[in-house]
Parts: sequence; structure tokens; C-alpha cells
Amino acid sequence: MRQKLLSEGAKELSYEIREIVKKAEKLKALGLPIYWENIGDPIQKHHRLPEWIKNIVAELAMENDVYSYCPSKGVLETREFLARQTNAMGGVKISADDICFFNGLGDAIAKVYQFLDQTSRIIGPSPAYSTHSSAEAAHASHEPLTYKLDPENHWYPDLDDLYKKVKYNPNVVGILIINPDNPTGMVYPLETLKRIVEIAREFNLFLIADEIYINITYNGTRAYSLAEIIGDVPGISMKGISKELPWPGARCGWVEYYNRGKDEDFNRFCQAIDNAKMIEVCSTKLPQLAWPKIVGDPRFKIYRDETNQSIGRRSKAISKILASVKEVTFNETNGAFYNTIIFRPGVLKPNQKLKIENADARNLVEKWVSADIPLDKRFVYYLLGAKGVCVVPISSFSSDLQGFRVTLLEEDETLLINIFESIRNGILEYVS
Amino acid sequence: MRQKLLSEGAKELSYEIREIVKKAEKLKALGLPIYWENIGDPIQKHHRLPEWIKNIVAELAMENDVYSYCPSKGVLETREFLARQTNAMGGVKISADDICFFNGLGDAIAKVYQFLDQTSRIIGPSPAYSTHSSAEAAHASHEPLTYKLDPENHWYPDLDDLYKKVKYNPNVVGILIINPDNPTGMVYPLETLKRIVEIAREFNLFLIADEIYINITYNGTRAYSLAEIIGDVPGISMKGISKELPWPGARCGWVEYYNRGKDEDFNRFCQAIDNAKMIEVCSTKLPQLAWPKIVGDPRFKIYRDETNQSIGRRSKAISKILASVKEVTFNETNGAFYNTIIFRPGVLKPNQKLKIENADARNLVEKWVSADIPLDKRFVYYLLGAKGVCVVPISSFSSDLQGFRVTLLEEDETLLINIFESIRNGILEYVS
Amino acid sequence: MRQKLLSEGAKELSYEIREIVKKAEKLKALGLPIYWENIGDPIQKHHRLPEWIKNIVAELAMENDVYSYCPSKGVLETREFLARQTNAMGGVKISADDICFFNGLGDAIAKVYQFLDQTSRIIGPSPAYSTHSSAEAAHASHEPLTYKLDPENHWYPDLDDLYKKVKYNPNVVGILIINPDNPTGMVYPLETLKRIVEIAREFNLFLIADEIYINITYNGTRAYSLAEIIGDVPGISMKGISKELPWPGARCGWVEYYNRGKDEDFNRFCQAIDNAKMIEVCSTKLPQLAWPKIVGDPRFKIYRDETNQSIGRRSKAISKILASVKEVTFNETNGAFYNTIIFRPGVLKPNQKLKIENADARNLVEKWVSADIPLDKRFVYYLLGAKGVCVVPISSFSSDLQGFRVTLLEEDETLLINIFESIRNGILEYVS
Amino acid sequence: MRQKLLSEGAKELSYEIREIVKKAEKLKALGLPIYWENIGDPIQKHHRLPEWIKNIVAELAMENDVYSYCPSKGVLETREFLARQTNAMGGVKISADDICFFNGLGDAIAKVYQFLDQTSRIIGPSPAYSTHSSAEAAHASHEPLTYKLDPENHWYPDLDDLYKKVKYNPNVVGILIINPDNPTGMVYPLETLKRIVEIAREFNLFLIADEIYINITYNGTRAYSLAEIIGDVPGISMKGISKELPWPGARCGWVEYYNRGKDEDFNRFCQAIDNAKMIEVCSTKLPQLAWPKIVGDPRFKIYRDETNQSIGRRSKAISKILASVKEVTFNETNGAFYNTIIFRPGVLKPNQKLKIENADARNLVEKWVSADIPLDKRFVYYLLGAKGVCVVPISSFSSDLQGFRVTLLEEDETLLINIFESIRNGILEYVS
Repeated sequence: MRQKLLSEGAKELSYEIREIVKKAEKLKALGLPIYWENIGDPIQKHHRLPEWIKNIVAELAMENDVYSYCPSKGVLETREFLARQTNAMGGVKISADDICFFNGLGDAIAKVYQFLDQTSRIIGPSPAYSTHSSAEAAHASHEPLTYKLDPENHWYPDLDDLYKKVKYNPNVVGILIINPDNPTGMVYPLETLKRIVEIAREFNLFLIADEIYINITYNGTRAYSLAEIIGDVPGISMKGISKELPWPGARCGWVEYYNRGKDEDFNRFCQAIDNAKMIEVCSTKLPQLAWPKIVGDPRFKIYRDETNQSIGRRSKAISKILASVKEVTFNETNGAFYNTIIFRPGVLKPNQKLKIENADARNLVEKWVSADIPLDKRFVYYLLGAKGVCVVPISSFSSDLQGFRVTLLEEDETLLINIFESIRNGILEYVS
Repeated sequence: MRQKLLSEGAKELSYEIREIVKKAEKLKALGLPIYWENIGDPIQKHHRLPEWIKNIVAELAMENDVYSYCPSKGVLETREFLARQTNAMGGVKISADDICFFNGLGDAIAKVYQFLDQTSRIIGPSPAYSTHSSAEAAHASHEPLTYKLDPENHWYPDLDDLYKKVKYNPNVVGILIINPDNPTGMVYPLETLKRIVEIAREFNLFLIADEIYINITYNGTRAYSLAEIIGDVPGISMKGISKELPWPGARCGWVEYYNRGKDEDFNRFCQAIDNAKMIEVCSTKLPQLAWPKIVGDPRFKIYRDETNQSIGRRSKAISKILASVKEVTFNETNGAFYNTIIFRPGVLKPNQKLKIENADARNLVEKWVSADIPLDKRFVYYLLGAKGVCVVPISSFSSDLQGFRVTLLEEDETLLINIFESIRNGILEYVS
Repeated sequence: MRQKLLSEGAKELSYEIREIVKKAEKLKALGLPIYWENIGDPIQKHHRLPEWIKNIVAELAMENDVYSYCPSKGVLETREFLARQTNAMGGVKISADDICFFNGLGDAIAKVYQFLDQTSRIIGPSPAYSTHSSAEAAHASHEPLTYKLDPENHWYPDLDDLYKKVKYNPNVVGILIINPDNPTGMVYPLETLKRIVEIAREFNLFLIADEIYINITYNGTRAYSLAEIIGDVPGISMKGISKELPWPGARCGWVEYYNRGKDEDFNRFCQAIDNAKMIEVCSTKLPQLAWPKIVGDPRFKIYRDETNQSIGRRSKAISKILASVKEVTFNETNGAFYNTIIFRPGVLKPNQKLKIENADARNLVEKWVSADIPLDKRFVYYLLGAKGVCVVPISSFSSDLQGFRVTLLEEDETLLINIFESIRNGILEYVS
Repeated sequence: MRQKLLSEGAKELSYEIREIVKKAEKLKALGLPIYWENIGDPIQKHHRLPEWIKNIVAELAMENDVYSYCPSKGVLETREFLARQTNAMGGVKISADDICFFNGLGDAIAKVYQFLDQTSRIIGPSPAYSTHSSAEAAHASHEPLTYKLDPENHWYPDLDDLYKKVKYNPNVVGILIINPDNPTGMVYPLETLKRIVEIAREFNLFLIADEIYINITYNGTRAYSLAEIIGDVPGISMKGISKELPWPGARCGWVEYYNRGKDEDFNRFCQAIDNAKMIEVCSTKLPQLAWPKIVGDPRFKIYRDETNQSIGRRSKAISKILASVKEVTFNETNGAFYNTIIFRPGVLKPNQKLKIENADARNLVEKWVSADIPLDKRFVYYLLGAKGVCVVPISSFSSDLQGFRVTLLEEDETLLINIFESIRNGILEYVS
């Protein structure tokens, strides 16, 4: 080419959660059965949507108007519906104009970071969810800035670490919370959220809350929305239907801007995000039309409650299998549908192995682990080769910890037990 | 906020095609009927999708798996289907891996320019389609780079202008063609396309072809695909279902990478685009599943042919009304469903007016035109106030010309005649 | 102009030490006598260079070869001489190739920061010397990053503040020390320097030491050179003849690279600095030839010792006048020839005044202070108008403190006493 | 290091004119005599400054005040003197405030380009003088933008090439002329200069004229100053004493801003350049004081005229030796003291050689030419090894041409003849 094509930031784009799939596909091609514990897609894990929901979608599909563009920021009635929902929480107040739809939260996330000045940084949790951390890093042409979630304290944020990283780094302009969190399943306690709002206020920051899992809690826990606790601090809440309906294939999410009127810089920033969507004309229309019909149906609450309870039951089942493994730090989760299990310091070593029966698979895995890779990735490759369980190494989440993420989604209970016993056995054999 | 939030590039984001809507909505709120000639959405212009197509979509909506994520780059079978279609043209050859799905072409366009190095520029046609020109300008923090389409020569590209702008500006790394073109309705002649490929080869550039309208031609014209004429030059074709099905609300488009293997820089660039999609997990799934079923159905070709013929008929009807207006340069179109009508030099003046009966509407329009605005925008505001016809000024398309864009979409023939006679009368009254 | 000319970083260029001169010149034009306590130029403050030194320079000026270019990095023999001097300290070892001459340290400073990556930051002391802080800020298009010097602790660096700002801001790649310090006159204690080297080692940083005043200490204090304490950490020492000879008008300084071989990144960085000088061909030759002759002369040590003792005596005289003023924090200095005097919190208020006899001068000062300016600048303007003493407000040194910088240079003792009694009286009247 | 240190732009810093010295030094170390035809330093080429000039400098060196700082922009009286000189030309008018001194033009050049926005480009002549082209390229992180000087037309600028590169590249904001030119010795004809001013006016550009050689013309030619022909177009003239006195070791040059008041953007740009100098406090003082005394002395004009005539005589002598060599394009020069000799197309081939007697030297040269280097550099290395003549390959001046630059400075006439006969013989043997 005539001159350099790629921007510096492009090299920060990585998403190991999908990279591991390529490895697993290669083993699958050798005939190994693979148990996909790598992706948070309930449908793939045998969740069945209720017929009444699919009926709503199918009926909409027969209407001619559904196929047209919708307004740039989304269907007005749906945005009004969502504004009412948020306002009903009793915290910050918004109108339909404070809401903008995107093609899934991934799209929203990409645009929020893209138009931030290169030197302005958003600090987010570590372990970090790649969609946020890669996009933020790409905008800055620099590795992600993170605050620690502490596995020794229920994965709660290390507030001292956050405070100092904000205070001593003048480039930090915002704090990201993912609540409930992916990949740890932690639900931010109310006091923690209040403290983060205070930090934002002290240093004149804005907040971003990824609340895609906000209605997915269990074991008696509730998650507090940014809208409830933000007060007069500027902030952006990100919500969507991928996990809650669940309809990840729809690519339908939205952002809610809080306190736009309180700061002119922030207001212009929100306007730029709206403009970025406007040049793409609009976002997916069918799911926007379906969502109020679905959520507004009295059956939805029952369905969601039951689904949450199922996840809660599975969290207990997994806990029963893994909590007693002394080589790992295990936290029972209260929200979302992931769990991150951390190897205690010193447990992983570079010469550990699992026995892999299939010779081709063994050769492949041995080739992979011969590269200079983190120790938890080494374990993950062996677990994949030996037990067919595909999990994601936690070092792939911008973390210094060693461990792996699993999902709590498998609806076939026998299979679930089976998979997690395989994981437990894998750990025990590997470290022995 | 603690420090500057917005990147320099963000100020380049503008999309006048939607901005005019805000003006029209204000007049509508005063009771004026508005004829929306501003947006290329067939559905809004009374096009009715065949029942069999909606049935396909509705049936898919009843399948559980449709709701899950699909692979990052898109449903494999659909990409294989599309690769076969492209390969059947007899030009460049691709595999499913050379295709990546996006949430509509707007999404694809945003990502292609986002990860280009800031100093590397793509030159595109003027009048310019804002989704391309704004995104490219935002990446460069600089106004768009354009080559001229010539209204005095069927809107064909001024190849001498293009050649010189490429030759004498070493930052140009690629050429964009929109074929058929939006907003001019021009279809690139084969010889023109071949010459552009030659220019790309001479200066080591890659090509981008927005081919969203590639199958929407009429009046005996066909459009040549990039795949047919690119030879061994690297390139990206952009395609989608928004206009051709039409299903703009689906947000479903894809890119095809040509000759990735021919240049390592270009290959890395394509990889970065794929990676950018990967961190958003995947694109809209339902339309990907529907498209091969629809296009593969023998009824589709018939339906598309008839629809194209209707557009062709409307192009003739409009021509009959406007071609003889001596104050404008009028080109009958052969593709897409827009026409750009240019005022001859000197025709527009700052004191021209149209009579607006409604006093509130008149006051509003007079307020708008009192600002420092281009002369064609002035005409457009008066036309909106006086005749209720909403068109887009051509100065909003990064063009020095003065004129406006209309659509060829109105399916109600009486209404169509009515609208374009209003436009003609508006012109004649305005300039008299 | 055709498009934006100025880079973003250019707006960070400011140098209040010279800006105050413009104000003082205006008062001088009204007939007020001005006492220039704003600039560190011994010659302007009645210091007389010994005849033997001027003879050396004048004799060189009669040699033809002195007028030609010298090698890009400087006269080889002089660099060898300097390398021997540094090596004689017994710390890090360098060769002539590790030295590069510049047109004064200002030139060296400009080039060191200019070619640093925009996101890589050097943290330096606050109050900050503008030549460093403006150049660093301009490279980053961002306000300076600083660690605190503590007026309540002899102006020693707040090491906890430094440590945290380094630890929690991953963009920090280097630490600047100015030793002895301008504007505080503080000499870094050995233990402090060792700790800073440790911090650099822990976080893989390099050090920059501006040692222009390294041989200007008194009252029994010595300054430790970077070369003595750096060990194997990469670093750059900056030295020159402006203050030590003194010959500020010569524009002759040099950098010494320490431990280039220990880190490839650092080595490339030093190479880029050398290259930047190479494209300017070379630096001032005459002073390079003169310096070894002057410093190598046995009379020089005697002269420098006497000059230092004089500065020390003046530091005592000033202390006698100002140390007891309870409204300020006063630290007696041990190096360089400045003192920074800080108003205690709450002492300065927006309505304080000094009586200015000359009506024109009073009007001018009242106009200046009517703008939104820091409280210490307000005091400085009144002091200038009322007493004719020109000092620099400390808020102009990227500091949150309120105070002003004076020099210890006035060689006319009666005048010195007079000036500082004026300052004391000015303070007492102003705050009363 | 903790993160990347070097900016992208830093890799554009190269200065082959000095690089060749390193090669020559290696051969010298093997015992070869070297004739330095690579650098434009009259003093090194045996030029002797008149005693009266050295006396002026030596007398100044005995004055105490000469050693102090001067005002940031330079000694006021000297700037007033220079403003009068410029105003006496009868063209554009300036005051002392429109002049800023630098540490040689290299320093001025570095600062002018440094604070230009990264996307704003200055187009300059090719063959390009590295001090300009490297600094401009470093600011843009991109290779230099150039217009062609045509060896087949007296090295005059190709105005069509310039016009098109300006017209078709909207990032061009200024045009550089070096008049008389280094490395070609061409003096811009009046008509050419007028045309360049017109182009600047048409596209709203500013002009930069490097006029370091403006008073060094001969053979009946005069050079026209920017001040004479610029009219009301904004521009910057760069002047200095390095070549004209000559005193290159002084590092003393200045810029003159023309028509600052005509454009606010340009005015701010000039202000930023002044500010950049201000943070370095000031420039070399002694030469600023000496220059008006020297130039104001009636002996100076006589001395300069004689020196120019000598250069003119040498230009003839060289012409006599080289003009008839049919393998090269030779242009007799009229200004500055360089000549660039171009090999006709096809003359240079990759297998040509010169016989080198000294075996060590031969081995060294053969090693150098075994790398992938331009063909003219290959010739230059052989010439250096075989004849000891050190010239600079023209491919090192951002040029596609093949040739080399010599100087017209050797004052020892026998030696001069000798050197150029060696060059001629070298060419003839090499291509035979």
C-alpha cells in the first residue's frame, strides 16, 4: 500500500473470549466433544425462550412498517417507555431524548470510547471485560487502565486502589462499573456504588455503568441501578436485551444519559455519540418494537424470576463442587451468569499436565503450551484437550491473576454437574 | 469535567439528511402536511413487502436458535452462500473467511475508517454521502477529500480530477466508489471503473465499493460489481439488504475483502476490521438467516425486477416534470433511487422567496433563512414551508454545487406527480 | 489560512518569568525605577566576570577556526574533557559519545521532550521551572504532571506524593529533578536522590537531572550529581555554563546520557535527540572551546568558591530581613540563586492593596488586578507598582501555592538590603 | 522502559550530509587523505575571516554585558537595525517586533515546523535540504512533501508540479523556497517568485523563504528577497550570519514575519514561535551585538563582493572541468556555494566500480556497497574510497534523481582543480 494503513490503536483490539473458540474448534475437528463454557449465551446453553415471546416477534415480522428505518435515536414510544421505567426508580430523571439505541451494547461501547479525546481515560474493573477494555485501549493507543476487583473480598472493588489511580492520574475522566459484573458475577454493594459516585464528584468525572445484567440477580441479592444512586453526577447507563430476554442475536441495546444538563462538556460528548449513531441512520428496529410488548407483559416478570432462580440454583450446584477445592479461591456469585475461579498463588507451575488420550489432540495442546503463554492459559488448554471443557483464562481479561471464567448457563442439570466435576477433577489432576 | 472529553475528529460528524427532519417535524407540529422526500426508505414511501418474504422472517422468529449469538463474522452458511454468489461473477475469488457481517453498512463504514491511520485518506465522490464522508473525516480530523461527479456529464466522475488528487496527494491510500451512486443515481460506466482500478494499481491504493444499490438499476442499465473488474488490486466491497430487500430496519450488511493475500498491509487492515467486530461479539443474526432463503427463492428475482421497473417508471415520470425546467440541470437516473437536481450557476439569489400561507410556518422559515446558510438550503427551507416537500440541499453533501436530492420512491403515483409538480412550481415561483 | 496552523500543544507554551517583564517595562516607561528580581542573570545584577576569563574568550575570537562549524555533537576534545570530569566522580562511566552539546539547556530541554511519544510523561517538581514544564506540557498537549516540593519541609520533595503519582499513572516514563532547584533554591538530600533512583528502578523509568546549578551551593551544603547516585538506571544529566561561568548569553549546555547500553528503548531515544541536533548541524562553538580553558584554570575554583560564598552571604542577609515575617513561610536556601517565599494559607485576600504614589502607575496596576488573576499575582503587581520591585508570582510555576520568587544575585549590598526591606515592608503593608 | 519512549515523528530525523562524514572518518582512520566536499563551511575550506571582523568580536568579548542574557526575541537595537534594512528594500514593512532571533536557522526551522498542526504541511523543493525536510517530516510523521526543481531547466522550480501539488492536496498550508538554493545553487527568477506568491494567495497559504544565502550571488545574478515580492501574503523570511559573514559556529539566525496583521491564524502561529523561543529565555547574544557593527562597516560590502566573485570564479573553474562530461547534467550556479550534478538516466548501474588501491579501504567500501543502497550513493562511496573526495549523494536529499552535491568553497585553487579533476576522472572511470 502507498503508506501505513493501520492506526496505532488498532493493535489493542483483542478478544480472547472468541480466540479460545478457534482452539476448541480445532480439537472438535479431531473428534473431541466440546462443552462450551466460554460464552455467555443462554440460548446456546439450551435455554428455551417462551413461545409467547417468540409469538410477539413473529407477529411483528408480519407488519410492513417493521422493516423500515426508525428514528436515529430509536423508536420514540420505546424510548418513552424506557424513560418511564428509569424515572420510576425514584432517582435521576430522564426523557426520551436522553436515550439512544445502538446495535447492541458492543456498538454503544465502541462509539462511547471512539469519540473520547485520546488522552482522556476511563478506568474500569480488572478482571476486565474485553469489549470495554479493548475499545477503551484502542481509543487511547495504550493498554487498559484498571482498578482491582478483589477475589479475597467477594470480588468487590478495591476502593483504595481505585481512589489512588483516579487521584494520581489526571487523565482519568471517568469510571466504568459493570454491575452485575462480567466475568466475576459480583454485584456492587450499595455502599461501594455510593463511594464511587463520591469519587467521581470529587474529581469531576463521569460514570459509565454497564447494566446489561442489572435484572439478573439471585440468591436474595438485588443490584442497584446507576439511576438510583448517581445524584447529580453526569453518567451513562448502558442497557440491553441480549442477556435479559435473552436475545443476543438481536443486537439491541441503548444508553441513558444522566445529568446531561449539569455539564456542558459532558453534554457535547453525549451529542457526539448521538451524532455518531445518526450517520449510521438508525439501529435495529424489530427488537425495539418487541421489547415494550415483552417486558410489559405480566408473564415476563414470572419468566425472568424463574430464570434467575435457575441460575441461582446452578450457582449453588457449582459451589458444592468447587468451593472446597483448596487450590482455588472460589466466590459464590449473586448476579450475571459467570464465575471466575482463581488459582491460589504458587499453585500453577510450568510443568503441570493433564493426560490427553487422543494423540492428535495431545500433540496440538503440547504445541500450544510450548509457546510463551500465561500459566492459566496453559491449564485452560490442557483442560480443553483432556476434558473437552472450554473455559476462558482470566489472564485474558487484563488481569494479573491466574484462573478462568465459567458460565452458569448449562440448563441440562446432569450435563452441568458433569462439566463442573470434570473441571474439579481437571484441577486436582493438573496440580497434583 | 476533569479534562477535555471530545476528540478533535468528533466535530466532523454531521448528517444533514437527518437534520432536515428536525426542521420538517417543527413545521408538521404546526399542522403542515409533510412529504418526506429526504430519506431513502422504500417502506416509508408505501412500498409493501411481499407476504412470502415476511412469512420467511416470521417463521424464523419462531425458532429458538435464531435468538442466540452467531459467529463473530456472521453465520457460516450465509457467508458461504454469498461467497458462491460473488465467485459466480467470474472475477475475483473469495471464501467465507473473506466476508464479515456488520450491523448494517453504516456500522461497516464506521469501522473501516476508524482503524485507518489518521494521515491515510480515502477519496470519495462529491456530492458525498454523509455516512462515508463524515466517518472518513472524523478519522482524519479533517474535512472530506473528494473527487467531482459532473452534473454536466451524466454525473460521471471527473477522472482527471480524481487522477490529479490521487497523484498529488500522497496521503490518499484508497478510492471510494458508490455504485450506483447516492445521491446522484449515477451508475459507473464499465470504462470508468476500469480506469479507477488502473489508478489504484498505479499508486498502490485499495478500493472501496459501496454496492448497497448494485442490484437496483433500471432503464436498461446494469451496474458492474467491484468483484468483476478489480483484478488483483486489493479492495473491499460493501453490500447489504437495506435497500435491496428492502429491510433497512434490519441493520444487516457485510463487507467482502478482495485480494487480501496480495498485500500484507491490506491483510492486516482487514484483520483489524474483523477484530473490531469480534469485540462486539457478532452482528444481527435473524436477517443473516433470512437472506439466503429470500434471495434463493425464485420469486425474489421477479419481485426485484418489478420493483426496479417501477423505480424506472418513476424516474421517467419525474423527468417529464423536471427535465424541461431550464433553471436546473437534470439527469435522468439509471440506478439507486435518488436524483440530484442542480440549479444552474447564478440562478439562486439571497432575496428569493416562496409564499407561505401559514403565518407561524412563515415566521419559522424566515428565522431559519436569516442565518448564514447556503443558497440551496434557503430554497429547501422555503420549499418545505410553502409546499410541504422535504428534500435535502446538495450543499449538505460536501459539494460546492447548489441543488437538492429527491427520492424516486413514492409508490402512490398520484402523490408522486403531485409532489414533483409542487417542486417544479416551487422552483419556478422561487426564481421568478 | 487554508486550514488550522497551530498544533494543540502550542497553547501550553508560556513563560510567566518573561511575561512579568512586559508589565515592569510599562511601569518603567512611566518613570518608575525597577529593581529586576525576576531573572536569574548574575551579569544583569552587577556581577563582573574576571578579566582573565574574558581574555580567554577574546583570544579565541581572534582564531579563524573558531568561526567554523564544529562536529554535530560538539567539539571532541571538550566532550572528552567533560567525560573525564564525570568519570572522576566515581559513579557511572561515560565516553565523549555519551555527550551532546546544545544551544543552551533550553534547547536541550526542548528537544528531549519534543521527541517523546505524546502519551509518555515526565513528572517534575512543583513549583515548576517553566522551561521544563512548558516544553513537557507542549509535547503532551496537556498540563504539566508534577510532584510537590514541600515549603514546610525545607522544600524537599514529597516522596510519598511522587511515589503514588508514578505508581498510579502508567504513562509516567521518567522523573525530572532540578538540583539545586529553581525556583526554590533547595538542594536534594542524598537520601532523597537515592529514593528517587529506587522509584525509577521499580517502575522502569529513566531520570532527567537538570544540573545547571550543580556547582552553585553554599552554607556548607554540597549537591550530589546524578552520575554519582544513578547506578545502572538510565538517565540524562543536563549541564551548562550559563549560571556557573556565568555566561547565559552564550547558549551553551550539554546532556550526558547515562547507561544508554542498559536499555534499547532508552538508547534509541538518546539517538533521536542526537539526530535532532544533527539536522541543525551543530551548536555554538566558541563557548565549547572556551570552557575547558576556563574550568581547567586554577583560578576558576577560587573564583567560583568566592562567588558561591557571596551568594551564601546574601542568603543570610535576606533571611535576616524576611525569616521573621510571620505571614510567610521562609526557607533559607543552600543552592542556586533563587528563593521562593510562600504566603501562609489565608493571608492573601482579594481586597488588599499597596499605596502607589504615581497616579498613572496606580491606574495601570488597578487595571491589571481587575482581571481574574491569582492572589499572589495581585500582590506582585502591587509590589511592582508601589516599590518598583519585580518578582515572579509562584502561581506562575504550575503551583497551587501563593508566593513569589526572588533572586539572590544583587551584588550591590546596600541595594540588596534596600530591595528586600521594600519587599518586607510591601508584605506588611499589603496584609495589614 | 515502562512504555514506548519515541514519538512516531522521530524516525523522520535524518541528515545524510553528516552521515557521510562517519564513512569518511573511517577511511581517514585507515590513512586516506579526505577532501571534504560535503559541508558548506567556508572556514573549513580555508576561507580566512578579515582581521577587522575578528577584532570586533574580540573587543565585544571584553565587555561584561555581552555575557548576560538578551531579550527573548533578541537585542532590540539589532532587530531595529535589521528592520530598517528590510524596510529599505521598498517592499513589505516590518518593525523590530516582527523579528525573532534563534540559535542559528536550524533552531528557527525546528521551531517553525514543530508547532504546526500535524496535518498541516509545508511543501518544499526537491532536491530537499535536510534541515527543512527532516523537521517538516518529523512534525507530520510522514515523508517530506516536495515540488521538483528541474535539472534540465537550470534547476528552476517546476511550477506546474508545484501548482498541482498545492491545488490537489488540501493539507498544504505553506510553500518553502530556499533562495538561493541549497543544494542546487539555483537563484529563483523574479517571475518564478511572483508566480509562487500568486499560488500562495490563490490557496490562502503562507510562504517561508530560507534566505541564508540571499547575499551570496555571482556571475551577474541577484536574488530577490521575499520582502520585495510578497505583497500582502503572510510569510516568514529566515536569515542568518552563518554563510554570509561567514560564522556558522555562532549559531545566529533570525526570522522576519511579514504581514502578521493580515491573518489572525498566521499571527497566532508567529506568536507561538516567539513563545517557543521565550521558554528557552533567549538566543546567542555576542553575534547579535557583532552583526550590525560588521555589516555596518564599509569594509564589509567590499569583502562580501570579493568573496562572491571568488565563488563565481570557482563556479567557472568547476564548469570548465565538468560541463563537458556527457554522462552528467551540469548547471553552472549563480548563488550559494553548492552545485548538484546529476547523472543522466541509465548511466549508473549496479556493477560499476572504481579501483581502490588500499586493501582495507577497498574492503570497507565493498562492504558498504553490498547493502541495498541507491546507485548514486554507491558511486559516492567508491569516489570516497578511490579518490578521497567526500561528496553527498543527491538521493539523500529526498530526490528521485541520481547525482551528488559538491561545494564551491575550496579557496586553494590548485587543490580545487585537483579535487574536481578527481571527480571528473572518477565519473569517467566509474561509468566506463
